[in-house]
Amino acid sequence: MQRLIWAVIISFLMALVIGPVVIPWLRKMKFGQTIYDLGPHSHLKKQGIPTMGGVIFALPMTIVPIILSFDHARGSFLWVGLICMLGFGLIGFIDDFIKVRLKRSLGLTPMQKILPQLILSIALASWAYFGGEASTKLIVPFADFAWEPGIWYIPVMVFILVGTVNSANLLDGLDGLLASCSVVDFATMALIMMFMAVNSGEVATTDARFTSLMLLCGSAVGGLMGFLRFNSYPASVFMGDVGSFTIGGALAGVALLTGTSLLLPLIALAMVASSLSDIIQVGYFKLTHGKRIFRMAPLHHHFELGGMPETRIVSMYTLVTIVMCLVVLLNYTV
Amino acid sequence: MQRLIWAVIISFLMALVIGPVVIPWLRKMKFGQTIYDLGPHSHLKKQGIPTMGGVIFALPMTIVPIILSFDHARGSFLWVGLICMLGFGLIGFIDDFIKVRLKRSLGLTPMQKILPQLILSIALASWAYFGGEASTKLIVPFADFAWEPGIWYIPVMVFILVGTVNSANLLDGLDGLLASCSVVDFATMALIMMFMAVNSGEVATTDARFTSLMLLCGSAVGGLMGFLRFNSYPASVFMGDVGSFTIGGALAGVALLTGTSLLLPLIALAMVASSLSDIIQVGYFKLTHGKRIFRMAPLHHHFELGGMPETRIVSMYTLVTIVMCLVVLLNYTV
Repeated sequence: MQRLIWAVIISFLMALVIGPVVIPWLRKMKFGQTIYDLGPHSHLKKQGIPTMGGVIFALPMTIVPIILSFDHARGSFLWVGLICMLGFGLIGFIDDFIKVRLKRSLGLTPMQKILPQLILSIALASWAYFGGEASTKLIVPFADFAWEPGIWYIPVMVFILVGTVNSANLLDGLDGLLASCSVVDFATMALIMMFMAVNSGEVATTDARFTSLMLLCGSAVGGLMGFLRFNSYPASVFMGDVGSFTIGGALAGVALLTGTSLLLPLIALAMVASSLSDIIQVGYFKLTHGKRIFRMAPLHHHFELGGMPETRIVSMYTLVTIVMCLVVLLNYTV
Repeated sequence: MQRLIWAVIISFLMALVIGPVVIPWLRKMKFGQTIYDLGPHSHLKKQGIPTMGGVIFALPMTIVPIILSFDHARGSFLWVGLICMLGFGLIGFIDDFIKVRLKRSLGLTPMQKILPQLILSIALASWAYFGGEASTKLIVPFADFAWEPGIWYIPVMVFILVGTVNSANLLDGLDGLLASCSVVDFATMALIMMFMAVNSGEVATTDARFTSLMLLCGSAVGGLMGFLRFNSYPASVFMGDVGSFTIGGALAGVALLTGTSLLLPLIALAMVASSLSDIIQVGYFKLTHGKRIFRMAPLHHHFELGGMPETRIVSMYTLVTIVMCLVVLLNYTV
């Protein structure tokens, strides 16, 4: 627990140091955001703010947990978690790079984007299923019960991995939105791991493997807090796909390794709301040949066009995330 | 712990319900903020936004801990904590009421404001010292040691009580600033009490008394989160002195009862920074016959006039508060 706090503090300070180095460099290299043509008009003022700021937290999230778990038998958990995070992060990085360098607002084509995600997800899910190190039981929220999906574990996990990463990407639409919600998500994940270890009484056996993942979550909390120093409204840097994919990858990776994937829809409700609203919007549009349910999807743009100030939407999302996470934590405390 | 989470959730929902009832009423009753003439010019646009919104969290903070501790021997701790909170809150309420009704920006005269505060503080400190129920040992941060100040306990506590309440009042200068920082402060206080109970092994004996205070902190977290729904930038309501005094009173009251007063300068660093910058500014101004150290005091106005956006200052203060609180929590974990 003390180490968890250190992970937060060190990563926070690290991000504070990296920020002022990276941001002017990104600006100089003209990694400015090309604003999505279909977004709200008010977002046009954001043109030119550097993107790919995700490196500000991706770096501490990679380094700090490795260093702080130096005296533990890290097991494969930390490495698999990092592979998941960095693998998705790399896909996001390539997407960003193409967007920025080719001045194409949409980056990779949908096919180019989804294929490597599927390959990575299938590899990770197969490792978990056939490797025998991770538990393939999925904890069911609010029930004293874990679901054992058998071979279905692989498609379910692929869906959760790809879904989480892309939902995180969709949620990254307002200054500080994804970062604030994710700070809460990762803090919750860390606490769940702590309580799981305490409650099961298996502190000794699960400690080493879970500790390193807990440190990964702690570094995410700290790194994202440091990033928020630069990304909260009015943002001077955006995280880019490299950032949102790193967040989604880390979150889904930790969930995969700890069997807590089915808690994600509650913990990361904000992400789910973004995806679902997008899917509903597109589906409804096609079904009705042109009608819309939301003013704009994802959901946060619907609120924005309804006249709610950007800062208010971010605080509302963050507050709801905190409450949802507390509801989940109710299960793990006495 | 589960009950603590419930306190947060219930108070949050309660504040969400109270807000839309109270805010239009405050507006109708013309309890609009008369902006302090000496503040930054940009604050003039805030004229007319209703104040005294502190009732939105003061109500759940009073009701929820009483209800949720129904089956505990509440002891005198909860009542003394509530007296401290509501006593200071009442002084703030009177100040607000005079400001608003007489359209005087400064409310009570300094003497009228400080005298009841001193009387209340002396009464509370004396109760703690002579009553024998609260420990008069003060935990020293970062030391395995508690300071026993003897009869000096009374003036020290009076200083801390009056200091905290007025510092909270000074920190309440930007949208969402005091509320955000206080959410973190109260969450930390609740966790410290939890860890203290666990570490001392005295769970049984300290449980009942501390539990009710922990619930008070939890209700503060939830109530303030709900209040932030309306108070985060751009604010549609201000908390007023009734709000800042309630927060200061509750925080100092809990610290008094748990012997954690000496941790307050770390936990509530943002409040201390406000007071200290104010004192330094005024002192230096008098000494040098007209020179200033800060562009404007309290410190957050210094940053504001330096060109930092209001929302950024709030997020910076909140992030620093989180880190300071984590540093304090390092002492209570293994």
